[in-house]
Amino acid sequence: MEFGPLDAGSLTRRRFVQLGAATAVTAGAFVNADAESHPAHRSMIGVPFEKRNPRIAIIGTGGRGTSLLENLLVADAQIVALCDIVAEKAQKAAAMVVKAGQKQPELYTQGPHDYERLLKRGDVDLAIVATPWDWHAPQALCAMNEGKDVAVEVPGVTTLEDCWKIVDTSEKTGKHCIMLENCCYGYNETLILRMIQAGRLGELLYGEGAYLHDLREELFSNAGEGLWRRTEHTRRDGNLYPTHGLGPVANYMGIQRGDRFAHIVSMSTPQRGLDLYRKAHLKEGDPRLGERYVTGDMNISLIKTAKGLTITVKHTVSTPHPYDRINEIAGTKGIFKDYPPRIYLDGQNENESWDTIDKWKEFEHPLWKQEGEIARKNGGHGGMDYIMLYRLLQCVREGLPPDMDVYDAAAWGSVAPLSTMSVRQGSSPIQVPDFTRGQWTKRAASPIATQA
Amino acid sequence: MEFGPLDAGSLTRRRFVQLGAATAVTAGAFVNADAESHPAHRSMIGVPFEKRNPRIAIIGTGGRGTSLLENLLVADAQIVALCDIVAEKAQKAAAMVVKAGQKQPELYTQGPHDYERLLKRGDVDLAIVATPWDWHAPQALCAMNEGKDVAVEVPGVTTLEDCWKIVDTSEKTGKHCIMLENCCYGYNETLILRMIQAGRLGELLYGEGAYLHDLREELFSNAGEGLWRRTEHTRRDGNLYPTHGLGPVANYMGIQRGDRFAHIVSMSTPQRGLDLYRKAHLKEGDPRLGERYVTGDMNISLIKTAKGLTITVKHTVSTPHPYDRINEIAGTKGIFKDYPPRIYLDGQNENESWDTIDKWKEFEHPLWKQEGEIARKNGGHGGMDYIMLYRLLQCVREGLPPDMDVYDAAAWGSVAPLSTMSVRQGSSPIQVPDFTRGQWTKRAASPIATQA
Repeated sequence: MEFGPLDAGSLTRRRFVQLGAATAVTAGAFVNADAESHPAHRSMIGVPFEKRNPRIAIIGTGGRGTSLLENLLVADAQIVALCDIVAEKAQKAAAMVVKAGQKQPELYTQGPHDYERLLKRGDVDLAIVATPWDWHAPQALCAMNEGKDVAVEVPGVTTLEDCWKIVDTSEKTGKHCIMLENCCYGYNETLILRMIQAGRLGELLYGEGAYLHDLREELFSNAGEGLWRRTEHTRRDGNLYPTHGLGPVANYMGIQRGDRFAHIVSMSTPQRGLDLYRKAHLKEGDPRLGERYVTGDMNISLIKTAKGLTITVKHTVSTPHPYDRINEIAGTKGIFKDYPPRIYLDGQNENESWDTIDKWKEFEHPLWKQEGEIARKNGGHGGMDYIMLYRLLQCVREGLPPDMDVYDAAAWGSVAPLSTMSVRQGSSPIQVPDFTRGQWTKRAASPIATQA
Repeated sequence: MEFGPLDAGSLTRRRFVQLGAATAVTAGAFVNADAESHPAHRSMIGVPFEKRNPRIAIIGTGGRGTSLLENLLVADAQIVALCDIVAEKAQKAAAMVVKAGQKQPELYTQGPHDYERLLKRGDVDLAIVATPWDWHAPQALCAMNEGKDVAVEVPGVTTLEDCWKIVDTSEKTGKHCIMLENCCYGYNETLILRMIQAGRLGELLYGEGAYLHDLREELFSNAGEGLWRRTEHTRRDGNLYPTHGLGPVANYMGIQRGDRFAHIVSMSTPQRGLDLYRKAHLKEGDPRLGERYVTGDMNISLIKTAKGLTITVKHTVSTPHPYDRINEIAGTKGIFKDYPPRIYLDGQNENESWDTIDKWKEFEHPLWKQEGEIARKNGGHGGMDYIMLYRLLQCVREGLPPDMDVYDAAAWGSVAPLSTMSVRQGSSPIQVPDFTRGQWTKRAASPIATQA
């Protein structure tokens, strides 16, 4: 992941759009405007992948791209091209492909826009994007416009404008843009999803997801994410990285499938963590001492759904905290909460205490039943990365629709810019655009929830 | 606690006031209006109790009142009068007093307004109010107007109007009105408060408190709280009972003492829990089947303080959930969270995992060091009730100011009606009145925090 931040011109334009949207308060205005301007767009809901064993290109072969590649190779994926601005990283990734018995993939290492040349190739079916956040949307858009399906790392989008662009472009091109939200494929997440489908938690009422991950050391590293991710903290206050906590909860609740995010309020603490960290760790004269961080150490957002359910989303990467995604979901008959995983079903014991989920193995997801051993052996966030990529390949190879699609990517990703708008307006409620243009009411449950 | 709901006339007036306030959005408007209308009021900040061994009256000798009485007797408190609308309950409480070696207290059992006659007695110094919520404010006001200090059970106030009334009346009469917020005196709460005072968590950033307590059975009981508490769920949507979670967090942050609640947003889920419970447990023809519950099963509020810190407050009493007050407080150097109690201080271990608080016994509060054995033996929420009452008596006997005063009672209590306003307005931010009329900036830390 050796792509730098976008050039200043692009940033300025983005900022402008965000500010413009902020004054609208009801970001819902976007819905009609866009629906009207693209009346002929075909919805991508339920559209299957073209059935094939996809030829894959990976854009971004840093830490994350390499880890994805490793998992893809275990799943026998065909890798035909690799792209990185650091040639050595692409070469190292290429060696992994060759070692797996495939022929040498083509490398694209001629600067930050060489991905455009890659995406013009006729022999690529699916592009995987694992670059810094600024590049997610432009590269996803380019891939679709060049006729490729694209799977993009989180957060995928960082502005409302980009949320609409990926939706519009997916609908215009008929190509899928999916978010690589690995946490949706976690063991606990998929098991609980199936318990919910079976009605064990009753009618759902509220959920909570978070990204509580102390990244201070990584943010000030001179390699990997330290090269670009800290910059995000100089740009905006809000939830920078909502999807790992939000995605699983959205799946539990069937968001975009009978319900949708209606409005959001958001609140941030002051920023102290990065200032204190650099004061303790950087030497005098270090240019990073001149940076100004504006992202509050903790951001908390509340989302109300159209059916009235609530979702709490938290984000801190700059304070001391044991890793936690919270992953809580509650209904009329029970509640599950993670870290550690624990469940309470109405009346399960006399003293009203939590239990482990050990006795609920019957709800283990078929993907984990079948592929769990390989997934765990291979690693990658406890196996969820492998399960996610195995499933993606399965959907393409069998010509199925994706579990989550561009509408999920846009809705989940929109929470980042919407949280920023709400924070800027003193926690005022901001309407969430309906990226499905009304189709959420008619849509069936995600295959990940119903797969038997 | 055998007082029924207030008569319909009073309710209507309350509703009207709430609705009027709601349209103001900035409840802050209350500040100036009230400050101007009572310019001569003397602040109660730092005002000591009149030094004496207080002669105590208890209003409400149901389950809660009796439990408080038990603890008071262990602390050698003088009980001179008791009041309840059920004569047998007052008599039973009187027998406890006599058994403890004191003379028979005077009983006031002539209907719901007999407390007014009690409060006219010249030999009562301190009234303790443990009646249903509707009666807290009127009885506290009456006590102060009759020249008595008053300690009132939570929530103490349920409307913004009453928040101002207890402040105005305390200032006008020079009598204290304190909230019996027992959780502020819990073992963990007081230990963590002292760790914070010692700087162990660094600069504070955010906290979370809650009342997650499945009360469905109690709410439909034909005795005790079931007689009146369910009615609250027919009146308003919001956080009905914020102080057990909020009080300790407010103490950690020094709210009213260098910081204050600035604004609040609030969001509720739909109500399902009570409907489902009565469907499962009540017989056809039960009049409770005709009740209409409007309190969402889960309410989540976010409070922003003047210094920018955030507090999350949650409330559910109508869904399956193990008991939990969350009791979380986080700063730049570490975080504490309860249920079970666990702490993480920056760099405490390699794997960034929680630790118990066992190694921090050095911060045990002096009250617990001295009185912990008696408190635990005596029970009452793990001993916190005894510690709270012992400390209240200590403050009066030694002529000290109370740890928490009428400004804390008003601010903490205001979160209930303010959450209702925000929910009603689609989670719009509502300003929190400054009940100290600007004095919060100059005020020293609470004695409970600094007591050595």
